[in-house]
Amino acid sequence: MSEHLDRGRRVLEAQPFSRLLGTELVALSPGRAELALTLREDLRQQYGFAHGGVLAYLADNALTFAGGTMLEGRILTLEMKINYLRPGLGERLIARAEAIGAGRSQAVCRCDIVAVDEGAEKLVAAAQGTIAVAPERPGTP
Amino acid sequence: MSEHLDRGRRVLEAQPFSRLLGTELVALSPGRAELALTLREDLRQQYGFAHGGVLAYLADNALTFAGGTMLEGRILTLEMKINYLRPGLGERLIARAEAIGAGRSQAVCRCDIVAVDEGAEKLVAAAQGTIAVAPERPGTP
Amino acid sequence: MSEHLDRGRRVLEAQPFSRLLGTELVALSPGRAELALTLREDLRQQYGFAHGGVLAYLADNALTFAGGTMLEGRILTLEMKINYLRPGLGERLIARAEAIGAGRSQAVCRCDIVAVDEGAEKLVAAAQGTIAVAPERPGTP
Amino acid sequence: MSEHLDRGRRVLEAQPFSRLLGTELVALSPGRAELALTLREDLRQQYGFAHGGVLAYLADNALTFAGGTMLEGRILTLEMKINYLRPGLGERLIARAEAIGAGRSQAVCRCDIVAVDEGAEKLVAAAQGTIAVAPERPGTP
Repeated sequence: MSEHLDRGRRVLEAQPFSRLLGTELVALSPGRAELALTLREDLRQQYGFAHGGVLAYLADNALTFAGGTMLEGRILTLEMKINYLRPGLGERLIARAEAIGAGRSQAVCRCDIVAVDEGAEKLVAAAQGTIAVAPERPGTP
Repeated sequence: MSEHLDRGRRVLEAQPFSRLLGTELVALSPGRAELALTLREDLRQQYGFAHGGVLAYLADNALTFAGGTMLEGRILTLEMKINYLRPGLGERLIARAEAIGAGRSQAVCRCDIVAVDEGAEKLVAAAQGTIAVAPERPGTP
Repeated sequence: MSEHLDRGRRVLEAQPFSRLLGTELVALSPGRAELALTLREDLRQQYGFAHGGVLAYLADNALTFAGGTMLEGRILTLEMKINYLRPGLGERLIARAEAIGAGRSQAVCRCDIVAVDEGAEKLVAAAQGTIAVAPERPGTP
Repeated sequence: MSEHLDRGRRVLEAQPFSRLLGTELVALSPGRAELALTLREDLRQQYGFAHGGVLAYLADNALTFAGGTMLEGRILTLEMKINYLRPGLGERLIARAEAIGAGRSQAVCRCDIVAVDEGAEKLVAAAQGTIAVAPERPGTP
């Protein structure tokens, strides 16, 4: 397993919220991340689709993993934007993110989320956001 | 209890994902919604802060509830954008959303999310998004 | 010249603001648009870079042209988001947009803006937005 | 005239693009900025409304001025998002921005744009974005 993926899986495992949802880190390499999630019943909203918040969570996390591979230090998500394209139906969600530009302190990333329904992938959401190195604070250990 | 709030709580209760997280609908009136969430351990990320995905979920849901009060029919979230201002620390998150413009088929809403830490509120995220009436499809019951 | 491009150029020519800036529609086909702009002195800000507002204008217009090819009727831009990646330096800006999802009433599009400096392209901004068919209003001719 | 406003007007005057459009800085104080623009014919699109790019420019600039008052050093706009609420009709556009959160290196700001039509203000666009201090680069004077 690559060093990136190994390290990324430890980070994901250290996120209680990701464990609650059952997120898997499928792939992680410089500038690219892929997360997947089994679309359990309790990740849905009132119409039976994946809750928009689940898609937003996946986008946030995939953008941050992709951007984090391009930066050194403690990583945080500054902001992101998500467009919902169609209902999230099916058995599985996959979020694929990539860094499209990175400096020393920030990376701009994009993410596509597809739902896998009976083996076919459909684009359900598209996101874009900024990942940054947390500023070191004077006096902070 | 107002009719809006009563109906809103039934919608929230019908969202398995919101039940999983423990979200409460505190207030709902035309153009305004307030959601709250106890910041349990399993809603956090690796540094102990509220996971960005939890904040994004809250923003998505609060925007949709606020916008939904201005529209008739089946409601969906078209898109949203969220800026993370500071770490989500404390015992509780509150998301307050309001519609700033609404037509017959869409509403644009803003949302502030505060963390309540030892009784004091701090702004941790700010969001903006579009809520829409789902188009009726020919041939769909 | 394709019918799309021909029609698109008439639309662009009918926009006084695009004439003021000198925008050219380089290509237009279903789901794709390319706009270009010579980076004149009066399109810059105080540091000599392309003004962020020029990049935002280009993104807005390219997204709308790309989305418009996928929709029927009077088109409008609902919203967009833009990330600025590096200063817009050089002699020319090119905005390339594509629709990544389209229904009957809306299209979600992405746009990359590059600056051409001494023949080399550099990504200076990335945008994402929603284009929609304007709702017909009762009583409106 | 306040020191902020005086300094801001010199910055605006140093932006060739703002001079081309005729933008005025009406007010500037810590965390707040107001820009105005006479809606000349050549700032419109093909239906006679303010071009979306003009609104995006105003939002970008107002956000940056508001955020800039909270930060020290060379300022740049990282990203912004704009929702268009109704057509920009009338004689004048006013953009009012405020910082809703600021650290040492970044400020998150919101902006409302109204069109003034026969003396009445209508909200035509709402924006949100991030303003940052440009990182100093080693070796740069």
